[in-house]
Amino acid sequence: MMTQNILDYDTVALDDEKSALVIVDQTKLPGKVEIISLTKQEDIHRAIYILQVRGAPAIGVTAAFGLYLAAKEIRSDTYDSFYAQFKKAKDYLATARPTAVNLFWALNRMDDVAQVNAGLPIPDLKEVLRQEAVKIRDEDIWGCRSIGEYGLSLIKDGCGILTHCNAGQLATVRYGTALAPIHLGRERGLNFKVFTDETRPLLQGARLSAIEMVSNGVDTTVICDNMASQVMKNGWVQIIFVGCDRVAANGDTANKIGTSGVAILAKYYGVPFYVCAPTSTIDMSIAKGEDIVIEERPAEEVTEMWYKERMAPEGVKVYNPAFDFADNELITGIITEYGIARPPYTESLKQIFETKKNAKK
Amino acid sequence: MMTQNILDYDTVALDDEKSALVIVDQTKLPGKVEIISLTKQEDIHRAIYILQVRGAPAIGVTAAFGLYLAAKEIRSDTYDSFYAQFKKAKDYLATARPTAVNLFWALNRMDDVAQVNAGLPIPDLKEVLRQEAVKIRDEDIWGCRSIGEYGLSLIKDGCGILTHCNAGQLATVRYGTALAPIHLGRERGLNFKVFTDETRPLLQGARLSAIEMVSNGVDTTVICDNMASQVMKNGWVQIIFVGCDRVAANGDTANKIGTSGVAILAKYYGVPFYVCAPTSTIDMSIAKGEDIVIEERPAEEVTEMWYKERMAPEGVKVYNPAFDFADNELITGIITEYGIARPPYTESLKQIFETKKNAKK
Repeated sequence: MMTQNILDYDTVALDDEKSALVIVDQTKLPGKVEIISLTKQEDIHRAIYILQVRGAPAIGVTAAFGLYLAAKEIRSDTYDSFYAQFKKAKDYLATARPTAVNLFWALNRMDDVAQVNAGLPIPDLKEVLRQEAVKIRDEDIWGCRSIGEYGLSLIKDGCGILTHCNAGQLATVRYGTALAPIHLGRERGLNFKVFTDETRPLLQGARLSAIEMVSNGVDTTVICDNMASQVMKNGWVQIIFVGCDRVAANGDTANKIGTSGVAILAKYYGVPFYVCAPTSTIDMSIAKGEDIVIEERPAEEVTEMWYKERMAPEGVKVYNPAFDFADNELITGIITEYGIARPPYTESLKQIFETKKNAKK
Repeated sequence: MMTQNILDYDTVALDDEKSALVIVDQTKLPGKVEIISLTKQEDIHRAIYILQVRGAPAIGVTAAFGLYLAAKEIRSDTYDSFYAQFKKAKDYLATARPTAVNLFWALNRMDDVAQVNAGLPIPDLKEVLRQEAVKIRDEDIWGCRSIGEYGLSLIKDGCGILTHCNAGQLATVRYGTALAPIHLGRERGLNFKVFTDETRPLLQGARLSAIEMVSNGVDTTVICDNMASQVMKNGWVQIIFVGCDRVAANGDTANKIGTSGVAILAKYYGVPFYVCAPTSTIDMSIAKGEDIVIEERPAEEVTEMWYKERMAPEGVKVYNPAFDFADNELITGIITEYGIARPPYTESLKQIFETKKNAKK
C-alpha cells in the first residue's frame, strides 16, 4: 500500500536545521515510498553508490548538499585547516560513482566557491557554500521546469506519450526532463495517456517512471520494451519524450540502452521523437555520437538481478551496454532549458548556447 | 550443473513399449534438463497446459501421440464403443490450450484416420493410429530439416545471426524452424555467432534458445530486447531468422511480440530479415496481417512473473500482447519447407503451395 506520494517530496533536499540530506530511497521503489535522512558522510556516499539516489542531475545536487554538510561540521579557525578537511570530504564523495559527470561538476563548483572565498571568516564561508549548493538545486529545478514548458508546447490534452527509462523527477530534484512536460501539464489540469517502456535490464521505466506517473494521477501503461512497436502501430502514441546522457555537436545523442531502437520505430511509424537534454549534457567538443565510449555493465544484471533464479543457461555470453546512440537524423528536436533545437543541429545547438550566454548577462 | 544435453532428446517422443509420452520438461529450463515420461492422459493434458511442452509443432505432435496412447488403452470390442471413448479422449486433450491451432489440427487428423478406418478390427485400428501419429512426428522433423537446408543456403561459416523468442528444437520435435539452419550447420561443422533476444515477458530467448545454442557448442550471446539496435549498429549481425505464428496471403506475418520491432531495425540497418514458416502456418484465406486478432495475456506476466517482488507500482495498467505483425515490406524472405518465398508474396506463396501439391503427388 502506498502511504506517501513521492511527488510531495523533492528527490533530494537539505534539512539545514538537522544538518541532514533528505532523499527518496529509490532502492525501495516501487514497493515502498521511504524518505530517509542522512547525516553521516558515509551514508551520503553510500546513497549515491547503491543508487538510493540516481540520475545525473539528482546526483549533482546530492553531492553539493553533501559537501556543504561536510563543510558545516568542520571545526577549524584557519582557512588552511578548513580547506584541507573540505578537500578531503570532496575527494571522498567523488569516489561514490566514478563515471558520473554531474558528481564531479557539482563538487568542483563547490570547491571553486571555497577557494574564491578564502578570505572570508569560516562561518561566512560556510554560508556561501550553503548558498552555492542551494543555487545548484534551484538551477536544476528551473532548468527542468523550463524543459517542461517547451515540451508542453508540443502536446495536447489527452494525447498519447511514450517514454523510455526514467528521466523524471526521480532523476532530478523536481519535474525531471523527459517527464517534465507531463508533470507541468498536470499542474495545469491536463491529462495524457503515458506508455512507459519497462526498460531492461534495470527496469527504471516499470519501477520509477510508472510510480511518478501513477502518483500524479496519469493514465499509465507499462509495456515490455519489445511492445513499443505494436503500441505505435496501434496509433496510440502521438509523441515520444526521452532523456539523454550526452549530446554531441552534430545532435547525435547517447541515451539509455534501447532509446535508439525507439527512435528508429518512431521514424518508421512517423511519430515525433524528442530528446530532453539540459545544456549541461550537450558537449560541443564531441563531434559525433561514435566518439562517445559505451559503458558495458555486468552480465548478472541481465541474467539474474531481479529473478528468483538464474534465467539464462551457464556458458552463455551476455552483452550489456548501458547506452546506445540515436543518430541525429532520427531526432525531431532536442529540448533544452533554453529552447528547442531542430535540425541541422550543428547550427541550432550553437544558437542554444548563444541564448544561454545572453540570458546569463 | 548440466548433466544431460537437451539436443540428445527429441522434444516429444513416443515410448510405445512403456505406453508413455517422453518429453523435455521446459518449465525446468534453463536450470535443469529433465526428461519426463507421462502415461496418464491427465498428465499429458497438464504438460500442454502448464507449458512443459510448448511451440505449435511440438504441441501438435504431443497431441497426436497422446491421443494414440489414449486409444491404445481402450478396452472395447466394437467400433462404436471404441470410437465413443476415443472421441472423449480427443475432446479432453483439445481443452489443454484453447487457442493452439496445431493442437486441433493434429487431433482432427487422428480423428479422420479413426473414422476412415472404422471397418478395421480394433487392434489394427490402433496400429493405424500409431502410424499416423508417427507420420505427424516424421513430417515435422522433415519439414524443419528442410527449412534448415534452405536457411543454411543463405549463411556463411562464422556469420552473425540474431533471433527472437524460441523457434528452435524445443518448439518442434527436432531442429526447430528459425534455429534449424544453425543446428544443421553445426552437423556440418560450421559455426556461427548467435545473438538471442531474451524475449520479454516470458524469456524464451534467454531460457530456451540460449540453452539450445549453448548445448550445440554455438558462440551464443543473450541480450535484452532493447539491445538489438546497438548490436546491429555494431555490425555484428549479418542475417536474422525468426519464427512465426501465422502468415497472411500477402506475406504479412504474426509473430511473437517484439518481432516487428526487430524487422524495422533490420530494415533501418540493412540486415536481411527472414521469417521461417512451415506451410502449416501460412493461411491463404487471410488477406493481410491486420485481419489476425492479437491475443492479450495477463498483466502479471510483465509485472511479477519471474520477479522476487512486484516490479511495477499498483495502479498502473499493463498492455501485454502475445504477438505483433511484421508488414510484408519488412520481410526479405519467408522460408518454408518447400522453398523460400520472396516479394511479391501474393505470387510467391501461391507458388510454394503449388510446389507442395506437386511434391505430394
